[in-house]
Amino acid sequence: MSSLPETSVPTALDLTLDGGALTARLVDFPSVSGDEQALADAVEAALRELPHLTVDRYGNNVVARTHLGRAERVLLAGHLDTVPIADNVPSRLDGDLLWGCGTADMKSGVAVQLRLAATLPAPNRDLTFVFYDCEEVDAVRNGLGHLVAQHPDWLAADFAVLMEPSGAMVEGGCQGSLRARITLTGVRAHSARSWHGDNAIHHAAEVLGRLAGYQARRVDIDGLEYREGLNAVGISGGVAGNVIPDECVVTVNFRYAPDRTVDQAEAHLREVFAGFELELVDISPAALPGLSQPAAQAFLAATGGEARAKFGWTDVARFSALGVPAVNYGPGDPNLAHKRDEHVSLAAIADVERKLRSWLGGAE
Amino acid sequence: MSSLPETSVPTALDLTLDGGALTARLVDFPSVSGDEQALADAVEAALRELPHLTVDRYGNNVVARTHLGRAERVLLAGHLDTVPIADNVPSRLDGDLLWGCGTADMKSGVAVQLRLAATLPAPNRDLTFVFYDCEEVDAVRNGLGHLVAQHPDWLAADFAVLMEPSGAMVEGGCQGSLRARITLTGVRAHSARSWHGDNAIHHAAEVLGRLAGYQARRVDIDGLEYREGLNAVGISGGVAGNVIPDECVVTVNFRYAPDRTVDQAEAHLREVFAGFELELVDISPAALPGLSQPAAQAFLAATGGEARAKFGWTDVARFSALGVPAVNYGPGDPNLAHKRDEHVSLAAIADVERKLRSWLGGAE
Repeated sequence: MSSLPETSVPTALDLTLDGGALTARLVDFPSVSGDEQALADAVEAALRELPHLTVDRYGNNVVARTHLGRAERVLLAGHLDTVPIADNVPSRLDGDLLWGCGTADMKSGVAVQLRLAATLPAPNRDLTFVFYDCEEVDAVRNGLGHLVAQHPDWLAADFAVLMEPSGAMVEGGCQGSLRARITLTGVRAHSARSWHGDNAIHHAAEVLGRLAGYQARRVDIDGLEYREGLNAVGISGGVAGNVIPDECVVTVNFRYAPDRTVDQAEAHLREVFAGFELELVDISPAALPGLSQPAAQAFLAATGGEARAKFGWTDVARFSALGVPAVNYGPGDPNLAHKRDEHVSLAAIADVERKLRSWLGGAE
Repeated sequence: MSSLPETSVPTALDLTLDGGALTARLVDFPSVSGDEQALADAVEAALRELPHLTVDRYGNNVVARTHLGRAERVLLAGHLDTVPIADNVPSRLDGDLLWGCGTADMKSGVAVQLRLAATLPAPNRDLTFVFYDCEEVDAVRNGLGHLVAQHPDWLAADFAVLMEPSGAMVEGGCQGSLRARITLTGVRAHSARSWHGDNAIHHAAEVLGRLAGYQARRVDIDGLEYREGLNAVGISGGVAGNVIPDECVVTVNFRYAPDRTVDQAEAHLREVFAGFELELVDISPAALPGLSQPAAQAFLAATGGEARAKFGWTDVARFSALGVPAVNYGPGDPNLAHKRDEHVSLAAIADVERKLRSWLGGAE
């Protein structure tokens, strides 16, 4: 009977490590979407050691909270999963840069959450720390979505910070996204006798013309400029090289600013394409930045006072749907997410941790 | 040792049968494209029995000619192959209708050729009978094309009749066909930041607009009206639902009247799409009807004096390329070609044979 082989994969987290070292330990826990259990177990175990927090768990989602009766509650959220590993685990440190899968997206953000959870027993605002699974895969599997559906009370807060990589810039809210299919129809015929048919692709001329001529709106919300866009992201039609096609499908994507609700965005889309058959195939609500909230103002001041609009859709919209204003703020560079050469700066991790600690009343 | 099973597939052709019975025998010789050898052997053997004809063979293509020193030579051509059998062989006779694969397209036409070859030892015009393979498949395999390339002298004539199914109507010449790809390019970007990209699909708006607004020409040639058409037959573009696409390809098909050469047709296409990148992917020349030729005038008179333009591309264009005016004229209904319920009327076979015999100076 042989003994089990030694493994280099960690099984526990030491929250006394600094943010960079803790990020390295988190990266060395493989946690590709769907395989987060070991990491969720370790996070839960480490948090349960902290007497100032209550800890709840649902699936591989862990929520830890203070209950100090403060006037405000703020929430810090991060996902535990990564995209598939690409020969870039375990992590590797080179000077100020830590390389590896998840260093930017977003185990450095999770490390900052864990550091703040461990070192702020008496913050000036009540704190909620959310760690969730399956952010990098289909929306139906998203752990934060499951918490919203099953335990919305765990997520109650006045303001939320999603610690997705933002290059340590505050990115407010996010734009919404609608995808719709416009189907043009006609009558099939042999192309040698095209007058017997009605060309569905030709009918798409008007749809593409409206898209080409569309003037996208720019709008200021809480001092951030949101810039919309309406685009064809796909077109297909054709039966054979000698057939007048009877169908052509144009898929459009409308990215809209967070001053529109989903219904208003849909109404606008239907107005632009009046006269055409339009079917919504994907609906993602926008999220308001909420930067006029007092907690947000203090947060902005602590992080340097600058914010920009977030264009890509993120889970901040899930908080927005609960009535919780939310921003993206994390140490990683968003452009490195999902890349083989993903890395993060130790200085950025330390800087983000210091600013958040300052905002929450801790010593810098 | 058992004897070989009896087979119902014929191995020889009896040219004393009437046109309908001979069509049935031809249908009962399976000769799907690529598998014409047995039928070509039988056709060659039957023709070699006729002392007034010389017979040449190249591959599974058989050419038989009279050499009477007449002022004119006319050519009657037909293909030996069929599309794949669809449970419709052997042939089945029901009243006036003979059912089966190839009855219309075009073993009834071949039967008429063979009947005329066998029964017109002294026609008023020299005759050339051409039987060829692989008409129903890729143009590079077409037996008539191989004869044009290898033995153009065998095809010398003043006028040609291609006995493809035409509903016993004379169909003059054929339209040409050009297929071209128009590629629109742009710059890829995330659709959340669409202003960083340049949408290639939107650029197709102008191309489709020109197609939708195109006024197709109608032109009279030798009393036949040809009607052109310019159509998109395919369009495709798109990378993913959240990406501004950097390429969109529109495939267009221009069916043009035989008063345009290939070069003129291409020049017209480039003029219509001036400003766009256009790549020709398929080129088929048109064929002039040549109905002003003396042999054609006599032919028209013998067949009833009526003709219509041929819109679909046929092998008559191969004769036209050799300088031989050509028409389509055969007993089958072209709309039944390639169908499971393909059939032909015995009366139509007899009628076409009688009219051609009259034109060629035989007794009706």
